[in-house]
Amino acid sequence: MSRPPRRKDNHKISRELFVLTYGALVAQLCKDYEKDEDVNTWLDKMGYSIGIRLIDDFLAHSAVKKCHSYSETADMIAQVAFKMYLGVTPSVSCSSAAGNEFSLILDKNPLVDFVEELPAERASLCYCNLLCGVIRGALEMVHLTAEVTFLQDRLKGDAVTEIGIRFLRKAEDRKYRRNK
Amino acid sequence: MSRPPRRKDNHKISRELFVLTYGALVAQLCKDYEKDEDVNTWLDKMGYSIGIRLIDDFLAHSAVKKCHSYSETADMIAQVAFKMYLGVTPSVSCSSAAGNEFSLILDKNPLVDFVEELPAERASLCYCNLLCGVIRGALEMVHLTAEVTFLQDRLKGDAVTEIGIRFLRKAEDRKYRRNK
Repeated sequence: MSRPPRRKDNHKISRELFVLTYGALVAQLCKDYEKDEDVNTWLDKMGYSIGIRLIDDFLAHSAVKKCHSYSETADMIAQVAFKMYLGVTPSVSCSSAAGNEFSLILDKNPLVDFVEELPAERASLCYCNLLCGVIRGALEMVHLTAEVTFLQDRLKGDAVTEIGIRFLRKAEDRKYRRNK
Repeated sequence: MSRPPRRKDNHKISRELFVLTYGALVAQLCKDYEKDEDVNTWLDKMGYSIGIRLIDDFLAHSAVKKCHSYSETADMIAQVAFKMYLGVTPSVSCSSAAGNEFSLILDKNPLVDFVEELPAERASLCYCNLLCGVIRGALEMVHLTAEVTFLQDRLKGDAVTEIGIRFLRKAEDRKYRRNK
């Protein structure tokens, strides 16, 4: 994996306005949808739409080379993409013997910087679910199908925030699509 | 006006994810509210809530000193705040003899990077109205009352994007509040 070159400085911003704007988006969806599951689904869908557009920007500015394994891809997401778009670098661990499941572990999640805790009536909300959709959408544009979900969330009392990425192999992919 | 010190690098992010997430927020509001005016009002309100929280981050990280005139304040918004949170620096001009009205002129508005044009049925949408609310909210927290509105918008065919800031003087302020 090659290190990205420095992007032109005028594309760099402080992330706080983004984090607060994201909060406004989640709050609006919570107003619109009573069920947490519906908010989660919408965040994922929105993220997917963002991911399929963001990938062009990522490829243009990261100068990364083609990945040759799921493991390399997971590293790229954590070390290059997260750093570029959220300013943090999650640690990565492979969580399946088959080598197609990975965890991105965030000790600190900047997206919840201004969130103290989830309100009691929103206990099932995946506050950052947009990120799962973004990763899923971006991967799809480089011909990788994956399920991306939150496995742990500090907002829900877990010790860390953990995003699970499960790459679907070709046969599994077809089965997955059939069952959709 | 003193120059801000470099912020810790881990707060710097590429702005594209923010710009696309902002687009998702505007799209959601357009789904929720039929009238452009209502969307504009909500964007302004959301921005206001963001501004009153963002000011602490701004003061903590910009290391700017107290402004002694409206003109200095307008310069600070353009040269420090816009640069910090959007990666661009609008030019500033004073547009009233009384010295309390300013224009921030953006040759390029990063918030519309992924927007080609407004749909015909959304001709009155102030797509970036959140920014006006953010400025208004942040100013209020440093005891400055202002009206902040878009005067020109490239998305609507204007040559530049222009945000007007009208500082309300004390007497005017009271009158304004009475009429609210």
